[in-house]
Amino acid sequence: MAGIASQAWSQRRLRAREYGIKIGVLPTGIHNAITDVAGVRVGHVTLREGNAIRTGVTAILPHEGNVFQEKVPAAIYVGNGFGKLAGTTQVQELGNLETPIILTNTLGVGTALDAVVGYVLQQSGNEQVQSVNAVVGETNDGYLNDIRGRHITEAHVREALQEARGGEVAEGNVGAGTGTVCFGFKGGIGTSSRRLPDAMGGYTVGVLVQTNFGGVLQIDGAPVGEGLKQYFGSQHIQDSADGSCMIIVATDAPVDARNLERMAKRGIMGLAKTGGIASNGSGDYVVAFSSHPGLRVPYASSDKTQAVTLLRNEEMSPLFMAIIEATEEAIINSLFKAETTEGKEQHVVEALPLDKVIRILKQHRVIRK
Amino acid sequence: MAGIASQAWSQRRLRAREYGIKIGVLPTGIHNAITDVAGVRVGHVTLREGNAIRTGVTAILPHEGNVFQEKVPAAIYVGNGFGKLAGTTQVQELGNLETPIILTNTLGVGTALDAVVGYVLQQSGNEQVQSVNAVVGETNDGYLNDIRGRHITEAHVREALQEARGGEVAEGNVGAGTGTVCFGFKGGIGTSSRRLPDAMGGYTVGVLVQTNFGGVLQIDGAPVGEGLKQYFGSQHIQDSADGSCMIIVATDAPVDARNLERMAKRGIMGLAKTGGIASNGSGDYVVAFSSHPGLRVPYASSDKTQAVTLLRNEEMSPLFMAIIEATEEAIINSLFKAETTEGKEQHVVEALPLDKVIRILKQHRVIRK
Amino acid sequence: MAGIASQAWSQRRLRAREYGIKIGVLPTGIHNAITDVAGVRVGHVTLREGNAIRTGVTAILPHEGNVFQEKVPAAIYVGNGFGKLAGTTQVQELGNLETPIILTNTLGVGTALDAVVGYVLQQSGNEQVQSVNAVVGETNDGYLNDIRGRHITEAHVREALQEARGGEVAEGNVGAGTGTVCFGFKGGIGTSSRRLPDAMGGYTVGVLVQTNFGGVLQIDGAPVGEGLKQYFGSQHIQDSADGSCMIIVATDAPVDARNLERMAKRGIMGLAKTGGIASNGSGDYVVAFSSHPGLRVPYASSDKTQAVTLLRNEEMSPLFMAIIEATEEAIINSLFKAETTEGKEQHVVEALPLDKVIRILKQHRVIRK
Amino acid sequence: MAGIASQAWSQRRLRAREYGIKIGVLPTGIHNAITDVAGVRVGHVTLREGNAIRTGVTAILPHEGNVFQEKVPAAIYVGNGFGKLAGTTQVQELGNLETPIILTNTLGVGTALDAVVGYVLQQSGNEQVQSVNAVVGETNDGYLNDIRGRHITEAHVREALQEARGGEVAEGNVGAGTGTVCFGFKGGIGTSSRRLPDAMGGYTVGVLVQTNFGGVLQIDGAPVGEGLKQYFGSQHIQDSADGSCMIIVATDAPVDARNLERMAKRGIMGLAKTGGIASNGSGDYVVAFSSHPGLRVPYASSDKTQAVTLLRNEEMSPLFMAIIEATEEAIINSLFKAETTEGKEQHVVEALPLDKVIRILKQHRVIRK
Repeated sequence: MAGIASQAWSQRRLRAREYGIKIGVLPTGIHNAITDVAGVRVGHVTLREGNAIRTGVTAILPHEGNVFQEKVPAAIYVGNGFGKLAGTTQVQELGNLETPIILTNTLGVGTALDAVVGYVLQQSGNEQVQSVNAVVGETNDGYLNDIRGRHITEAHVREALQEARGGEVAEGNVGAGTGTVCFGFKGGIGTSSRRLPDAMGGYTVGVLVQTNFGGVLQIDGAPVGEGLKQYFGSQHIQDSADGSCMIIVATDAPVDARNLERMAKRGIMGLAKTGGIASNGSGDYVVAFSSHPGLRVPYASSDKTQAVTLLRNEEMSPLFMAIIEATEEAIINSLFKAETTEGKEQHVVEALPLDKVIRILKQHRVIRK
Repeated sequence: MAGIASQAWSQRRLRAREYGIKIGVLPTGIHNAITDVAGVRVGHVTLREGNAIRTGVTAILPHEGNVFQEKVPAAIYVGNGFGKLAGTTQVQELGNLETPIILTNTLGVGTALDAVVGYVLQQSGNEQVQSVNAVVGETNDGYLNDIRGRHITEAHVREALQEARGGEVAEGNVGAGTGTVCFGFKGGIGTSSRRLPDAMGGYTVGVLVQTNFGGVLQIDGAPVGEGLKQYFGSQHIQDSADGSCMIIVATDAPVDARNLERMAKRGIMGLAKTGGIASNGSGDYVVAFSSHPGLRVPYASSDKTQAVTLLRNEEMSPLFMAIIEATEEAIINSLFKAETTEGKEQHVVEALPLDKVIRILKQHRVIRK
Repeated sequence: MAGIASQAWSQRRLRAREYGIKIGVLPTGIHNAITDVAGVRVGHVTLREGNAIRTGVTAILPHEGNVFQEKVPAAIYVGNGFGKLAGTTQVQELGNLETPIILTNTLGVGTALDAVVGYVLQQSGNEQVQSVNAVVGETNDGYLNDIRGRHITEAHVREALQEARGGEVAEGNVGAGTGTVCFGFKGGIGTSSRRLPDAMGGYTVGVLVQTNFGGVLQIDGAPVGEGLKQYFGSQHIQDSADGSCMIIVATDAPVDARNLERMAKRGIMGLAKTGGIASNGSGDYVVAFSSHPGLRVPYASSDKTQAVTLLRNEEMSPLFMAIIEATEEAIINSLFKAETTEGKEQHVVEALPLDKVIRILKQHRVIRK
Repeated sequence: MAGIASQAWSQRRLRAREYGIKIGVLPTGIHNAITDVAGVRVGHVTLREGNAIRTGVTAILPHEGNVFQEKVPAAIYVGNGFGKLAGTTQVQELGNLETPIILTNTLGVGTALDAVVGYVLQQSGNEQVQSVNAVVGETNDGYLNDIRGRHITEAHVREALQEARGGEVAEGNVGAGTGTVCFGFKGGIGTSSRRLPDAMGGYTVGVLVQTNFGGVLQIDGAPVGEGLKQYFGSQHIQDSADGSCMIIVATDAPVDARNLERMAKRGIMGLAKTGGIASNGSGDYVVAFSSHPGLRVPYASSDKTQAVTLLRNEEMSPLFMAIIEATEEAIINSLFKAETTEGKEQHVVEALPLDKVIRILKQHRVIRK
């Protein structure tokens, strides 16, 4: 169900860059997606059932092997912690990630956590494993989705893991973004990437976001939220700006957990550039990992030490900039690709009105006429 | 099952203080238990089935009302984060706890999380709630328990919540301590409390622990681990010292989240005094909350501000000492009350041999002859 | 020297808002300055001597009384910690600020720290004080200034403290901003404020910045750095983007240290909106305090508790937005007011070319023609 | 002045181990001192002048080269942050230490900071350096010392740096420990080390402490504070338990900043075992670094990456235990070596009464008769 539905769902609207919006100064990777980082795969399961089920699951796999047996350096930064991200403290302590990352809705975290544990226990090679640190993030899709009905099952999570693949990534109302709302418009999943020039190391950074937050929308700097008279603080609108944004950052740069944490902090700076304010009720988290093959951390090893080659601190700034740019663009992509959705209690969330938006963007020369 | 079995299980061995061991300089509360803090209740469900199921659930309720509607100030400190404690970041961000705390085994966190979410959603008054931050901690009982079988169910968690009561607290092989191992001996649940002299404020601090860690056991300073030739680093023993310790701290002192975090840090100092080393593989966490009625945080309020009366920083030191003492004693109680257990794969973990221990303690004048 | 020179120095260029640039959606305070927060005062000492001394001191006083005797709730957030901010850990631990905040150059921190200690020891009422936690921040003005010559003296710091006053604040090449560089242009001191609508509480937030960092300059969203072909990552320019930004946030809202820390985190989001990337070599810090009279923390008290009325978490989002807006505008003001400067080794840093900038801003409709 | 005076000062009392006290289970290094870690040197300057000057400086140099040009991996952990440790945030951000560590009194931090900056600027090879992150810690010796007189000069700091050497380290009333008070007795400088068995890696850990804190003194577990009727909480004594403890940890193990931070956290566990409570007014900090030659971080490098061989997380536990043991013993050594001191306003602080203490330790079999 998942893969196919997702594709269909988002094919009518284009990504920001296809309209001529060029965020930042660095070039994108081939697919302008988190999957531009070698080995990274993404899978979605989209639940659209009846009038009230609008939710889903998105899985991000850091490499193609057994992640538990070959952990990846990782870090988590908490922009605003009104959220339920499971697995945080172990990643922070040990500096690595040992499972795929699952995104879903707020009340689905327990089930998704159980599903990831089951998935890891059953993987070939993990027969003796007794401890699994599943990383499961969420945003709250309860305006459109019957979230109290708790419709996410372990089977959905496994399906998302199985569906995961490289290449293009479905965006908008798919997977964990099926029922989310962003800046008062329909949000969802978005992705983007940057490839540093060779002089800056030639590394790739990819970002995937689940957008469900508010503020005063800016697109590449243009005041779209104000133009549309839809923003936090507007007298006409009772938008709490609450919600959340999950930001997943992947890179092939050889960076350790300490520098990954620094990279993760820049994800919130990208969010800021879209007009997000990390409001009180937001769960804004950044999970960053390196898929660099030379940095895999073996679960078991006869060696007491590990030899690694790491980027010096002095080389980090271009990666920081890449994350800021890719996060900003991934958020905008989530809005461009998401479609108007009716859900629970006949709530309707309109898609970002692209015609009006493009007019504003042309006025502000974000899009050259 | 739970309540009754628990009582039976731990009635043969006495608590440390009953043997004349007096840890620290401050007096205990009436029950020398976390329940000495007004309103705090504890419930256990103990799973002992067949040869291989040795696990359980322990629930700690911060007060007798609807905790989601009347949150309590709280903080979490991570001593060593090789653990899966769910709910950490929201407690740290918002400074409050909105659910009971559940302790269970490592692979049961997802199920317990789901159970707490269900419990909160169904509570009277929570009909509109769409977001729940369940705090679920764990240690790994996989040496004695068929942990991969994942025997904890949502029903067990609900039962622990229902069984919760004040007064005496069952210790040792009960609830989440059913299958744990501590300093190479049978660990489990332990509790203790301190009541500050009136000149120091008269506040009560209670601690409950789930002990599953290692090091070089000391009891009130005496070198019991060495005396028993059972300690980390011993050439005779391949004890990894890994495991974990969950430490729950309750107080009726009027302290905010910032000072609760400072209090939580002292829990690890109490652990250190038992000879724990917070080894690499340990998930050593302290969750601290204040049940002071004047500090309850209403979920919804027409007021934009809240008036509170808080302890000044200068008054914190006695509370810090109380936590150190109560944590140390709670850990020792868990060892004193736990009984020899056979479990999975005919693994046997011996109880702390009290006769030998008491001999050592007399030699070292911990117990006056 | 200080006050007068400062005024003269910055009178030829106007502030951003005077050109019609209106950042954000919230109204400013009366002076659009940190001094709009009642009781807050700012003093500058500007050192321009010979060919190579281009540095100074800026002092921010949180209220008009004896700050050591009446501490203010405070928090510090580290955006990127390549900096020497003194006093951080005590503010974080105790949740309060007990001295004025001093900004100066990187190698002047020790001297400034000594000066603040001396100032506090000598204040009336502090005769018994034996411990002082001075908060001293810095950025590195070593491109224009003979920083190795260490020209800041304790007298300069005392003068800045004495010169401090409310009302309008000199910006640009003054005080601690005398020798700084921002986005490749002359940076310096900037300030801005926001006053929340009464429905959002009516509170004021003021920000003062010392700008010395890089990235890809955006002004109210418009791509000025790209337009001027001066940005990090440009093939024409070897701009390291390093430097630093000190951000001081004041508010009269009744918020405690925990919520002030959350507010401080939003300062970096404001920096992000100007195109800053918090590069590897940046010391990007936010110090936030509340001057609300009801929250003063007395140094000594016969009471063991303190009654306070605090804003609920739910009311924080407008304050977050206010900080983001004011930080962004304060940074832009620092660039608008700073003038071309020649310094050490005949290094010249050009002022932001306002004519070209305004043309770009008009093209992008940031300024309506 | 310094070196000679120091030797004389502490020759009459022996170290704990010389009385048969054997803390922990791991063997010590050759000198049972921080200098057992290859390359680490310590220098003291002791100021005893007139009736009221009782203070000093202690310098710890991580290796024999130019530390700025060859930085060492490092981390800082804040046990309780009522202190003025300068340089914290940069160490935490970049994961390295670029200067010697200076310890002195609370009001001498600014001067010491200036002195270290001057020392680094003048070192051969540092002619272009414009930014220096000096790490300067302190405790408050204001009970015995005329701390408000601020008698520490830059010359004292330089002298401590020059005097630094390997081998035996003077303890007790020397250097930064000249005027400190610990558990109500004369504290000071103490040191200890552990060498792991080869099967655990054979690494050395050394600790140096500046002790100025309180609680309920325990020596190798024995209740000495209670035995001497001198402890926090005693009705007879108004001991605030405040003060501070600076803990410096050195190792030759190949560990990065992340694992050094974990190691640093264990320093406070060692402090806990002496009966310290990290009271409200304590500045309890641990600075940990690795002097392993293969991990030096060059200030400038033509390489963008650095190859390093690092200990796996799984190998950390013995190092954790070593730090706990060495910190405990270093604190006890500071008490054993410190002598009765009369200072400011005829305040007298008695040395730990070794005859009584040894009697207690024999009763408790810490010392075998």
